[in-house]
Amino acid sequence: MNHTAEIIAVGTELLLGNIANTNAQFLSSELSTLGINVFHHTVVGDNPERLMEAVEIAKKRGDIIITTGGLGPTYDDLTKETLAKCFGKKLEFHQASADKIKGFFEKLGRAPTENNFRQAMLPEGCTVLENFHGTAPGCAFEAEGCLVIMLPGPPRECKLMFSTSVVPLLQERSDSIIVSHTLRIYGIGESAMEELLAEQMTKLQNPTLAPYAKTGEVELRITAKASTEEEANALIAPVKEEVLGILGDKVYGIDVDSLEQVCLKLLAEKGLTVGTAESCTGGYIAKRLTDIAGASRSYVGTLVTYTPEMKTKLLGVKPETIAEFGVVSAQVAEEMAKGASTALGCDIALATTGVAGPGPDADGKPAGLVYVAIHTPKGTISKKIQTMTHSRETVRVGASQFALDALRRYLCDLLHFSS
Amino acid sequence: MNHTAEIIAVGTELLLGNIANTNAQFLSSELSTLGINVFHHTVVGDNPERLMEAVEIAKKRGDIIITTGGLGPTYDDLTKETLAKCFGKKLEFHQASADKIKGFFEKLGRAPTENNFRQAMLPEGCTVLENFHGTAPGCAFEAEGCLVIMLPGPPRECKLMFSTSVVPLLQERSDSIIVSHTLRIYGIGESAMEELLAEQMTKLQNPTLAPYAKTGEVELRITAKASTEEEANALIAPVKEEVLGILGDKVYGIDVDSLEQVCLKLLAEKGLTVGTAESCTGGYIAKRLTDIAGASRSYVGTLVTYTPEMKTKLLGVKPETIAEFGVVSAQVAEEMAKGASTALGCDIALATTGVAGPGPDADGKPAGLVYVAIHTPKGTISKKIQTMTHSRETVRVGASQFALDALRRYLCDLLHFSS
Repeated sequence: MNHTAEIIAVGTELLLGNIANTNAQFLSSELSTLGINVFHHTVVGDNPERLMEAVEIAKKRGDIIITTGGLGPTYDDLTKETLAKCFGKKLEFHQASADKIKGFFEKLGRAPTENNFRQAMLPEGCTVLENFHGTAPGCAFEAEGCLVIMLPGPPRECKLMFSTSVVPLLQERSDSIIVSHTLRIYGIGESAMEELLAEQMTKLQNPTLAPYAKTGEVELRITAKASTEEEANALIAPVKEEVLGILGDKVYGIDVDSLEQVCLKLLAEKGLTVGTAESCTGGYIAKRLTDIAGASRSYVGTLVTYTPEMKTKLLGVKPETIAEFGVVSAQVAEEMAKGASTALGCDIALATTGVAGPGPDADGKPAGLVYVAIHTPKGTISKKIQTMTHSRETVRVGASQFALDALRRYLCDLLHFSS
Repeated sequence: MNHTAEIIAVGTELLLGNIANTNAQFLSSELSTLGINVFHHTVVGDNPERLMEAVEIAKKRGDIIITTGGLGPTYDDLTKETLAKCFGKKLEFHQASADKIKGFFEKLGRAPTENNFRQAMLPEGCTVLENFHGTAPGCAFEAEGCLVIMLPGPPRECKLMFSTSVVPLLQERSDSIIVSHTLRIYGIGESAMEELLAEQMTKLQNPTLAPYAKTGEVELRITAKASTEEEANALIAPVKEEVLGILGDKVYGIDVDSLEQVCLKLLAEKGLTVGTAESCTGGYIAKRLTDIAGASRSYVGTLVTYTPEMKTKLLGVKPETIAEFGVVSAQVAEEMAKGASTALGCDIALATTGVAGPGPDADGKPAGLVYVAIHTPKGTISKKIQTMTHSRETVRVGASQFALDALRRYLCDLLHFSS
């Protein structure tokens, strides 16, 4: 049976534009994975009349209502009261939630106020959803043919409560499960990929193929519906193989978090170390690698040399090279990579030099032009890239993606060095 | 007169959770500045029936309807057709928009398809809103007591069109204007600030004071409504002075973009240079400084030394210091800052060493513990900070904020060096 959910976010801060409704994005993505339709998002402020109206409208157009926000302890947190009223239910005191609130304040060495215990008042007969990140419990109940689920507003609390408590509730109501695998792809644009996969994308019904463009890369999600996980994976397997055959080594990982995570895993497996010499990326590659816990096993350090003098002093780039080819050149990028490998004592070094923009550099080279070099035990190579310069951010993300992908390719034996 | 706007976002990608509704956030924030109420956001897919229903509901609860999305050239872009139908209007061919589309494709060296010219069909009698970033024009018309505004979905196009074409339309309809100034604050939490300003925040009606917590800092927006900009600023001035008197040097800027921007401006004014030595922040401070165009005037470089050996080799940190106090210590942070200043030849150097987490380090020091040092011509000082470790990101943002604020304080003569 097909379910249809509406997400109602409650919070004046959303209507003032202080925050974006990222909870709705997260929940929509999760619900779509569970095979549940989402046809509407609604946002109302901390206003019981307008919330009640929104609920009455939602009742008519779906069978699942998920609210986020308005579960806090203050006078304007009215979601539970309002939803209970909409469905003719009373609020009841929930001892376990009250005990949790008491314990939370004891730990802080503070006394809870009366207000705090308002969070322990929950609709009669509801399923209480524990909040592992805060004091506000969520809840769920069924009434008038509708499953009503109330989640807290802070995204960390909302996400964890959904994943731990709501997913099982929804799976109970479904006779099939959805499995999806995500291919992460670098080196091809979304429309070029769609052209390559046009036949599969239009022909396939189960599994389905859905592409998503992200900054500097593309994702392809393969999603199957079946009665068990094994069946779903069996449906996915041949399609995955076919797609991998077409996209080849442009797929840098399946169900992985990021290119930097893949690189660090490969480095650790091979017992190799990496360092970087960055000019236009200004520490961005270093930042991305050190975003990952445990990076210190394989990443040793970075020299951000933002001036020509620093490139010479710290990396040993020859002043003649800079004079002859300019700071933004293949020659300087390669000398930077070699110099970083020596200075940092690492097996592999990545280097970037380019024009982040918004304007051209002092030599008149255009914004978006970047040279990326990689120095390895097998040799040193560099490549020129010209990113479309929407912003410094675009150029810097583009250059760091290219550099990290070069590292991955080297570690997977996909880079060719001319001898 | 008080206007009430509803924002209707059209796009299946929002309901699948592929993107967050950041347009609604931007528009809400802008509308609130213009003194226009926003009581509802609605999201529907690329589905004319559901869009029509949403418009019928919105008509009853406000006098301004702003749609985003669905203005593209493909068959599922139906916003103009649907809104025109809701208000009994026909679509008409708009020559200037067609010419622009033709010109756009000529530049690309490609021929437009019939579909592309669908973007030049606009509701009869509407005001055409030019799109400076794309081919899809927006439009606005008044009907049934409602001002209807249609904006494109891509955030860059939506924002620019709103700022250039819609703000004047809305200001025409308003007899007052809204002016707001934002104080950026570091070194005090949102609730502590609210306590300090409790009297002002409850007492004041015009201007109003509104605090916003961001990661690692707090904002305070002072907003006044008056018939001219001068009058509004005259209302704001005494309140701003009072608030500055209370918050003092915790306010790092007014109407500025970021702490790094303030630092680079001060450095340029004083003709000083800065460099960084980063361990736990892994290049994050460098990345933040080089996010700003023109950073190279004052920022020279960074040494990210992720291992103890690199700290010794590149920064001259004494192995004895590491052995005696541990890598994560005030002594190592100060030696790193001094070493960076020597290696990079800069006037001021910032250094960080800490445990980004999620677990403790090899010496058993807890995640979130960071030492930040600043070396200046007046001396070197360091400070221990213990960030709440929600994530590596929190720890790294916190440490980079602290380091940049130390730089600002030095440049504003607010740092005290014991002699």
